[in-house]
Amino acid sequence: MFDTVLIAGLGLMGGSMAKTIKARTLSRVLGWNRTRATAEQALADGSIDAIATEALYKEADLVIIGLYPQATVDWLLENMPKMKKGCVIVDMVGVKQFMVDHLEQAALDAGVHYVGGHPMAGREFSGLDYSLPTLFDGASMIFVPTKSSTERVLEQLEAYFMSLGFGQTVRCTAQQHDHMIAFTSQLAHVVSSAYIKSPEADKHNGYSAGSYKDLTRVAKLNETMWSELFLCNAEPLAQEIDEVIKHLDEYRKAIRAGDREELTILLRNGRERKERLG
Amino acid sequence: MFDTVLIAGLGLMGGSMAKTIKARTLSRVLGWNRTRATAEQALADGSIDAIATEALYKEADLVIIGLYPQATVDWLLENMPKMKKGCVIVDMVGVKQFMVDHLEQAALDAGVHYVGGHPMAGREFSGLDYSLPTLFDGASMIFVPTKSSTERVLEQLEAYFMSLGFGQTVRCTAQQHDHMIAFTSQLAHVVSSAYIKSPEADKHNGYSAGSYKDLTRVAKLNETMWSELFLCNAEPLAQEIDEVIKHLDEYRKAIRAGDREELTILLRNGRERKERLG
Repeated sequence: MFDTVLIAGLGLMGGSMAKTIKARTLSRVLGWNRTRATAEQALADGSIDAIATEALYKEADLVIIGLYPQATVDWLLENMPKMKKGCVIVDMVGVKQFMVDHLEQAALDAGVHYVGGHPMAGREFSGLDYSLPTLFDGASMIFVPTKSSTERVLEQLEAYFMSLGFGQTVRCTAQQHDHMIAFTSQLAHVVSSAYIKSPEADKHNGYSAGSYKDLTRVAKLNETMWSELFLCNAEPLAQEIDEVIKHLDEYRKAIRAGDREELTILLRNGRERKERLG
Repeated sequence: MFDTVLIAGLGLMGGSMAKTIKARTLSRVLGWNRTRATAEQALADGSIDAIATEALYKEADLVIIGLYPQATVDWLLENMPKMKKGCVIVDMVGVKQFMVDHLEQAALDAGVHYVGGHPMAGREFSGLDYSLPTLFDGASMIFVPTKSSTERVLEQLEAYFMSLGFGQTVRCTAQQHDHMIAFTSQLAHVVSSAYIKSPEADKHNGYSAGSYKDLTRVAKLNETMWSELFLCNAEPLAQEIDEVIKHLDEYRKAIRAGDREELTILLRNGRERKERLG
């Protein structure tokens, strides 16, 4: 379907995408990385078929970007004009309104199809060394259509990504994506990072089990990437923090008031929501 | 070491303790449960050797209680006088100052050794049906000495619990325990329960991965038990909620101010704490 795929950025996400495409499709994979040694490593270990020079960009039918938000915008604004007319471009940045705002018109101008993308998978590690051909197995792949994309392109992408091992594809607007991600992913990282800051954490050994481990796991994050993602989605995320603080305050008030009935209701509502929503 | 063990309360914790002792030691296990049908079920499936009548209480060398906080206090105040002088009593309630305040003097009066206990293991289910002989494998067992316990009793308990498969035993004061548990366990349940209340949770399907799952897992809790535990440890828990709200507000301010440098520092500090503390 996509004979030649160009992947720009061969870190955890781009590297995993390259390995997945090599393992599960017949597509030829071209790889580009700012630090050339990483591209050479990817070539040596078979993650890609060739290192992409600018002259090769126009051979790509599908371009997948695995860079940080601003770097993705910068790279695409510079390189879109060098690409084949009608090719399909998907980024993998965890915020979407910011990307669409910067790329939609440029894609129209360059005669390429830009679709926002976000694979719902990751690891607490960065870089090609940690990339896996199985990282996306069963995961959800989100696509955000833009004015530069067509129904046919979206259907091609959905079929191709399902063939890579994704468990489902979801279409939504950039705004829907950013509000949901503020809650399901960004807030989780903020809460985890805030949680670990209690002075009690210094001596938790011997006093902790699964719940502490779960609540603090994603505090181990890449702060350079996440601070950029958070600020690209500042208001939706700040509103989710407002929301969780508001609810925490309800529990705190009931606890300080010794109000068993109210506290039981608050906890029951939470349990019932979790059971209903999964 | 403890020839006969009496277990009062055959739910998830008491049932698991009975099954573990039967599987790993030669101790005879007597079981008591308020609803007699549960004790009969435990007898039928081999979790206990006999149902404990009051006449049998005095045969127990070790008494382990698997009841809720107030129920544990009530049961022990009523039944301690019927027990063998010099026997050892351990409860499994997740708060300790409340227990010691109510039981220490009564144990001295009855001539028995009361030690506060808290096995750091659990499941998101309740009842004998979910109890497991492996629930405590590798877990930490916390002991809180009281004026009624001796060094020899504590050493016996530590050796016996290690023989059950616990990974370590920890000794601390009731106050140390309650402050740590407010953070490692109780706060995790409050945060998880508050987290799931965002309106965005209603439509998270397709937009969530591991971090959402981790942050909301323990929202599925037994609100009758946890509301009682929270109110038995109200001020330490309320202070931990104060603490996490204070930190959440720091992230929120940096995000609303668009302050990339401050946000990066906040996230880096969290990552470094997680890496250092585990």
